[in-house]
Amino acid sequence: MDIATLIGLLVGFGLIVWAIMSKSDLGNFIDPGSVAIVIGGSIAALLVCNPLKDFLGMAKVIKNAFFTKSSDAQKLIQDLVGYAEVARRDGILALEGMMRDIDDDFIVRGVQMAVDGTDPELIEQIMACEVETLSERHSSGKAILDALGRYAPAFGMIGTLIGLVCMLQDMDDPSKIGPGMAVALLTTMYGALLANLVALPLADKLAIRSAEELLHKAIIVRGVMSIQSGDNPRIVEQKLKTFLPPSLRGSEEDERAA
Amino acid sequence: MDIATLIGLLVGFGLIVWAIMSKSDLGNFIDPGSVAIVIGGSIAALLVCNPLKDFLGMAKVIKNAFFTKSSDAQKLIQDLVGYAEVARRDGILALEGMMRDIDDDFIVRGVQMAVDGTDPELIEQIMACEVETLSERHSSGKAILDALGRYAPAFGMIGTLIGLVCMLQDMDDPSKIGPGMAVALLTTMYGALLANLVALPLADKLAIRSAEELLHKAIIVRGVMSIQSGDNPRIVEQKLKTFLPPSLRGSEEDERAA
Amino acid sequence: MDIATLIGLLVGFGLIVWAIMSKSDLGNFIDPGSVAIVIGGSIAALLVCNPLKDFLGMAKVIKNAFFTKSSDAQKLIQDLVGYAEVARRDGILALEGMMRDIDDDFIVRGVQMAVDGTDPELIEQIMACEVETLSERHSSGKAILDALGRYAPAFGMIGTLIGLVCMLQDMDDPSKIGPGMAVALLTTMYGALLANLVALPLADKLAIRSAEELLHKAIIVRGVMSIQSGDNPRIVEQKLKTFLPPSLRGSEEDERAA
Amino acid sequence: MDIATLIGLLVGFGLIVWAIMSKSDLGNFIDPGSVAIVIGGSIAALLVCNPLKDFLGMAKVIKNAFFTKSSDAQKLIQDLVGYAEVARRDGILALEGMMRDIDDDFIVRGVQMAVDGTDPELIEQIMACEVETLSERHSSGKAILDALGRYAPAFGMIGTLIGLVCMLQDMDDPSKIGPGMAVALLTTMYGALLANLVALPLADKLAIRSAEELLHKAIIVRGVMSIQSGDNPRIVEQKLKTFLPPSLRGSEEDERAA
Amino acid sequence: MDIATLIGLLVGFGLIVWAIMSKSDLGNFIDPGSVAIVIGGSIAALLVCNPLKDFLGMAKVIKNAFFTKSSDAQKLIQDLVGYAEVARRDGILALEGMMRDIDDDFIVRGVQMAVDGTDPELIEQIMACEVETLSERHSSGKAILDALGRYAPAFGMIGTLIGLVCMLQDMDDPSKIGPGMAVALLTTMYGALLANLVALPLADKLAIRSAEELLHKAIIVRGVMSIQSGDNPRIVEQKLKTFLPPSLRGSEEDERAA
Repeated sequence: MDIATLIGLLVGFGLIVWAIMSKSDLGNFIDPGSVAIVIGGSIAALLVCNPLKDFLGMAKVIKNAFFTKSSDAQKLIQDLVGYAEVARRDGILALEGMMRDIDDDFIVRGVQMAVDGTDPELIEQIMACEVETLSERHSSGKAILDALGRYAPAFGMIGTLIGLVCMLQDMDDPSKIGPGMAVALLTTMYGALLANLVALPLADKLAIRSAEELLHKAIIVRGVMSIQSGDNPRIVEQKLKTFLPPSLRGSEEDERAA
Repeated sequence: MDIATLIGLLVGFGLIVWAIMSKSDLGNFIDPGSVAIVIGGSIAALLVCNPLKDFLGMAKVIKNAFFTKSSDAQKLIQDLVGYAEVARRDGILALEGMMRDIDDDFIVRGVQMAVDGTDPELIEQIMACEVETLSERHSSGKAILDALGRYAPAFGMIGTLIGLVCMLQDMDDPSKIGPGMAVALLTTMYGALLANLVALPLADKLAIRSAEELLHKAIIVRGVMSIQSGDNPRIVEQKLKTFLPPSLRGSEEDERAA
Repeated sequence: MDIATLIGLLVGFGLIVWAIMSKSDLGNFIDPGSVAIVIGGSIAALLVCNPLKDFLGMAKVIKNAFFTKSSDAQKLIQDLVGYAEVARRDGILALEGMMRDIDDDFIVRGVQMAVDGTDPELIEQIMACEVETLSERHSSGKAILDALGRYAPAFGMIGTLIGLVCMLQDMDDPSKIGPGMAVALLTTMYGALLANLVALPLADKLAIRSAEELLHKAIIVRGVMSIQSGDNPRIVEQKLKTFLPPSLRGSEEDERAA
Repeated sequence: MDIATLIGLLVGFGLIVWAIMSKSDLGNFIDPGSVAIVIGGSIAALLVCNPLKDFLGMAKVIKNAFFTKSSDAQKLIQDLVGYAEVARRDGILALEGMMRDIDDDFIVRGVQMAVDGTDPELIEQIMACEVETLSERHSSGKAILDALGRYAPAFGMIGTLIGLVCMLQDMDDPSKIGPGMAVALLTTMYGALLANLVALPLADKLAIRSAEELLHKAIIVRGVMSIQSGDNPRIVEQKLKTFLPPSLRGSEEDERAA
Repeated sequence: MDIATLIGLLVGFGLIVWAIMSKSDLGNFIDPGSVAIVIGGSIAALLVCNPLKDFLGMAKVIKNAFFTKSSDAQKLIQDLVGYAEVARRDGILALEGMMRDIDDDFIVRGVQMAVDGTDPELIEQIMACEVETLSERHSSGKAILDALGRYAPAFGMIGTLIGLVCMLQDMDDPSKIGPGMAVALLTTMYGALLANLVALPLADKLAIRSAEELLHKAIIVRGVMSIQSGDNPRIVEQKLKTFLPPSLRGSEEDERAA
């Protein structure tokens, strides 16, 4: 659970509501027609620019910005080193029995291929391709939010233009000019909020999450290849720890100092 | 048929029409002169920036965003593996008889070269060059829509400036100021709609379609090269399946488990 | 002669004139001082950002967007294959006599070096360097038009600001406010037209022309190198045709089928 | 201490305050609600787009733009050459005793690995990875300030829209229109100042600082590898000095001339 | 002396002054406070984003856009070929006596290393590193002007916002509204002029100058390496001339034809 995403959204919308209520009535800032133009128009543009399947998968993508498996790279490396020890001690076939206890499907598939005696080059190719596919799925998820960040302000402006044209064509009653313009400006505000508080920051967060997840997959690929080639567990650990920032690599230096 | 493109356009324009009719009369938002400036001006700019041939081919390009051959990568791989089996069992010449039943011209041309005994390197070069040419044709199609997405808002602004100058030069009758400005703003709205609901989203969709089609061509090139070199069909299948996302690769794991 | 460039400019300016005349008088939209600010200011900026030589060469560059040698890649390949046949049949020195009839200077220079027995590596280096130089000259031509496309709207805005400041400082006569603002807006309109109907589309067209011309040069370099190394004319043809899109490569397949 | 950062901020804000006070009262330009929208909204967006940990580390990152260790590349090279001399004269183990006096942790860790006899390739991999991690931490620090530079003007505009809508919905008292609009514009000004005087220039400064620090690390990596392989100290010096601009490399030429 | 830079600035500012004087009084467009905000604010931002040393070096950088050593690549190549002849005829040590007459420090340093018998690889590394350093110094000079081109319009807008807020808060005297707004707009105009007539075009010119100078350095590096390895002067000339555009390479073809 990435608490910052939720806090950010609550703080942001809370502030806007507070700012409005301190000067005016919140009801003056809610106009269902304006909401429909900005949200509906942006959704329409997203439907034109994405295949239906990707569009429907958007909710799943956004979820990743809020929830995220606790991903502990140190624990992961420890596990992989453990498998390497078993494989070295009892032979690689000994891993077959352990696979039921491994949570991560990607490790299971990789180890299974190693156990089956698949050609190492093919294992690496298949795992790399899976990582590549995951990376593309992440990018296309981020691309949808980026597109929302571009189209929401555009439809905000289109809504404001519609409102202004309506107001300008009927200026007989001067007392209606102000409120008419006020309503017209609401769509621009909706579009700016949707883009700058929701779509663009979520897209950035997804990019960071994606980088984290891809790092884990890279550690797993390297680990499985090391297990397959029967590397010394100490070497496996040293190799995998180069993926970690120095501050998380402490144990290694301790061991070396020992 | 990519239903999302059509739905998106219908929803988008439907919403705009509904938003206008709920506040004013649709007729107030239709001004043939303004339409002419935005559409005509954008077309003029596209003519200046593209060769006539590319400009006239634009309709064909846009069609790709709506209609698309059902492209089933799994079926394609199955077919290629089938040809590999025939070639391995009965010799590569046996493929000559099957070519009449192959729909995809690109496969036919590749297999024909293999049957003719053309030098493998030259086959790969020729096929790669064909893929490259296709990719460039796709890019130049997308480039036209991207250009439309840039020029439409520009001519919308130019139209609004013309309208404003007309209105400002003749302000004797105050009752005409509002409607004059309203008409002036229409071109900006047209330009924004043309760019953000039509041109830019269609350009994005074309990019996604293009990536799909190029992936298919890449699978075919790899398949034909494997058939030519007489690879074991099992190996051909494994190699080609690395192009698929894991979720579509099921059979492979089943087979391996068997 | 690229007819689309001319048609586009005529259609574009025709539309603008028509739009103006349908609402107002064309004379109201022509203000020599405003023209001077936009055009003069842009030229001044171009002088600051380009060496005098490049600036003066701009007219020559723009001409390329209108006129263009009929460039027929198929004919070019046919010619090169013809030279390869002569060189193979009668020895490379036999090409010396034919050189008077070759139009393209670049081919002549390349063949001359081959006839002179210059080291093949040096021939390729010299020809590649010439192509590189051409490509840079094209880019710097495009860069000037791109710069014009950036500076023209900027000086349009500067002109409008000058006009607005003049108008605002002297608002005693309300009847002059409208026309004053109208004149002020004209520079913005001029800048937008110069950028979006002339400079930016011409820059795009130059990029397309440049790509075509560089492709031809690449075909020639490859052809001359093949002739120099005494390749079989059939192989020369196959190699050069990989530069063509499949639709223009028909004869090759026919020959192979034969 | 990078005095320019501090001077720039003082001069910039001083000028703005002076400009305001020369025309109006500073109090008119301070509106706590507007400050809350711009700063609070930007912080909310930063929370959505960054993991909590990175957000909280922002202060530490910004500090780097003000304070910076005196980093003297010439001194660093001299030190490394000194260690190389010791290693060559007394054997690499002799460095163990000197390590207590070395300030830079990164040198210590590298030399320690060399002394321990770790495989040179692994030393280089581990050190390169540490540099890579540092570079990414710097980039993500800069990215937060860049994001602030994008979101601050956006929330400035959102605040202005809220203010305008409030003012337009209640125009009964004409004397309130001006001040209402004035307050509405304040948020746009706050956003522009925060972005253009603080966030974006600090981001640029961080990039320059980061480049300096990474250069130092690169010198250290090369130096440690040279020490490990027992290079002649003269060669070590020549190699390391290629990282310096010529103006700082004088001694080398002097020595050679000698 | 690059006359175009000076002409451009004179024409540009001349036009603006003429445009102002034809409609109003030049004094109306000069407001010291506005100048202070735009210039002072931009300088403040530049101080925040650049180390003090780079900021102070800006004047030196800008000078390069006006003045420039007459750099004649043909003459340079002729000189280098001359040194190659001497080295081949009388041995490389014979160059030592000629070095007092060589103007270009970079050639002297390179030849000196060759004469000293420094390892060729190290010579190339040291010279390449010097070119790299020069290229970075040029880029950071250009970067300062680019930053000025971004910050000047931003502070122009900030100044206009300050002016508008002042005007809006005190609208009791309607006759002051116009002039107040006029003064407010001046800062936007100053910012646009500073960016579009000075900073951005000068940045572009510096990039072109830098490319020229780096080409010269590349010719020198190649020349020195050829001299060091004792290449035939004819070959040296052919190699160096591939850096020139064909139009400047005439003599070569003449010689070959001879």
